[in-house]
Amino acid sequence: MLGSHIDTVIDAGIYDGCYGVLSALEVIQTLKEDGFAPSRPIVVAAFTNEEGVRYAPDMMGSLVYAGGLPTETALATVGADGTMLGGELGRIGYAGPHEPGFLSPHAYIELHIEQGPVLERESITIGAVENVQGISWQKVTVEGDANHAGTTPISMRRDAGYAAARIITFLRERAKNSNSPTVATVGCISFEPNAINVIPSRATLTVDLRDPDEERLRQAEAALAEFLDAISQEEHVEVSVERLARFEPVRFDQRIVAKIEKAAKDRGLTSRRMTSGAGHDAQMIARIAPAAMIFVPSVAGISHNPKERTNDEHLIAGANVLLDVVGELARR
Amino acid sequence: MLGSHIDTVIDAGIYDGCYGVLSALEVIQTLKEDGFAPSRPIVVAAFTNEEGVRYAPDMMGSLVYAGGLPTETALATVGADGTMLGGELGRIGYAGPHEPGFLSPHAYIELHIEQGPVLERESITIGAVENVQGISWQKVTVEGDANHAGTTPISMRRDAGYAAARIITFLRERAKNSNSPTVATVGCISFEPNAINVIPSRATLTVDLRDPDEERLRQAEAALAEFLDAISQEEHVEVSVERLARFEPVRFDQRIVAKIEKAAKDRGLTSRRMTSGAGHDAQMIARIAPAAMIFVPSVAGISHNPKERTNDEHLIAGANVLLDVVGELARR
Ligand SMILES: NC(=O)NCCC(=O)O
Ligand SMILES: NC(=O)NCCC(=O)O
Repeated sequence: MLGSHIDTVIDAGIYDGCYGVLSALEVIQTLKEDGFAPSRPIVVAAFTNEEGVRYAPDMMGSLVYAGGLPTETALATVGADGTMLGGELGRIGYAGPHEPGFLSPHAYIELHIEQGPVLERESITIGAVENVQGISWQKVTVEGDANHAGTTPISMRRDAGYAAARIITFLRERAKNSNSPTVATVGCISFEPNAINVIPSRATLTVDLRDPDEERLRQAEAALAEFLDAISQEEHVEVSVERLARFEPVRFDQRIVAKIEKAAKDRGLTSRRMTSGAGHDAQMIARIAPAAMIFVPSVAGISHNPKERTNDEHLIAGANVLLDVVGELARR
Repeated sequence: MLGSHIDTVIDAGIYDGCYGVLSALEVIQTLKEDGFAPSRPIVVAAFTNEEGVRYAPDMMGSLVYAGGLPTETALATVGADGTMLGGELGRIGYAGPHEPGFLSPHAYIELHIEQGPVLERESITIGAVENVQGISWQKVTVEGDANHAGTTPISMRRDAGYAAARIITFLRERAKNSNSPTVATVGCISFEPNAINVIPSRATLTVDLRDPDEERLRQAEAALAEFLDAISQEEHVEVSVERLARFEPVRFDQRIVAKIEKAAKDRGLTSRRMTSGAGHDAQMIARIAPAAMIFVPSVAGISHNPKERTNDEHLIAGANVLLDVVGELARR
């Protein structure tokens, strides 16, 4: 099985996901044209909702496929816009007849852009991805009291917006000062009532924490929980947390990783083993089959942005490595 | 002329504004029932868009009435929801036939809830408002770069959301630490693209600064401008500022303030002179006529909140003082 996903974030680039699916189709086309007779079926997957932006968690389709989330639960997920995934899949004609997981892959390989700066910085063409960092997504809600911006002394405020700002700066300072590679991001925020002369009564924000090491990821979560306690006391606000996604770091199949390195070498391409900073469908399919990933460089490390780009030369190199590894895994 | 406004903020209380207009009608009713023959016409005003939440600036109707803003400019104001004030006034049947400012008041008196904690804390029933603090409203836009939350090292981020959080915490720390009574509030915020795994490319926030002293208000504005410069350098983001409202502190007519104090005393009510923390239509009408305000206590100092409340006894006391001052100003 080879593939990736075709959903995107808001204001996305054109490579994240689609590149892996289109390359997989191209690999099959090429193998056919070459008269290649595989030892087993070769299947292309385009997983639903890998990004998780509208419906959490991310990698939802491959998670369901791997048996990690019941189909019904996934279809009943209510999105950030209040819609239900199942209804929306029906509406756009993407609700298929098969029960997910009907195939049990011999192996899964996913080709993807790196979405980060490592390969470009080191002038390396192929990333042989051997692991994926852990992901922790939480939604934090802060409740204070609406009051008048002009008449309420600072000392009497229960300002949900200020507490939210403190959470954002806490996460950044910790990520910057700790010697660990933990990254922390607040991507979404909203205030209520969201009026210029009203102290916010409620603030809602999302927290994305990642680390390749499970123990350090737990430490980051614990530090956040401790800070939320402290800020709720200090600012007299109520803080509640909802978990949106939690995936432990994943180690890929080392034999496939080695095949990727070898395929790159045989084509005269530079390569290195590396960790994926982003989540990917491969990390879910790794639960039911040997899996690994091939990365190609992202210009300036930009992704989740319309400026996302990968040079043609690198796009072709990645697809050729995918072709060779698939040929190798499906050889008679 | 007596009155106030009947527009409200989002999720408002029921007293802010309406109390002054309804009491004005009640005063006229009472004077009529008493057979009072005034020396000049008594007029009730209900000014448009005092709150300024949807269309900036606040006190827009009375500002137009006082000649501080052309009617056409006000009607062409585009709101936070993209609508135009003139169109919306027409749609709800509030577009009147008269050119604002057709009356030139002998005096203007406005009865309003305090919206702050001072009167209740001191167990005083009547506030004789002698001045209003200055108001500075700005919209700050921070532009960074969208990028992937999992793959982008902290050191490579241009995170508009983090910069916005730093602006919020800066304003609070300054308000808390300076020995001045300057208050600062961030009531509105939004991130773009507002997705959990995307570093915000843009953050927009509103800043409400107030101080009874013009010089200190200028210092607060200058300190913010300096901080915006610093954060834009530090975080490699672009910061731009749009002014939404700017009103200098206003001093009311001291003879009317004295009449309010005397009316309270004659009715056996406690009173004190005080500053208004909120903006009011009276501060605009003060440009074209002697003006002053009467305040009554707000329970727990709460306003711009559905929990806003004033006890009946205080509501009645305020209306009686208004009645007496109007009677006094319109006596033959
Ligand atoms: N590859 C990718 O962008 N996945 C989306 C899930 C995430 O890592 O945030
Ligand atoms: N009184 C009152 O709430 N006015 C609205 C304008 C402001 O002070 O923010």
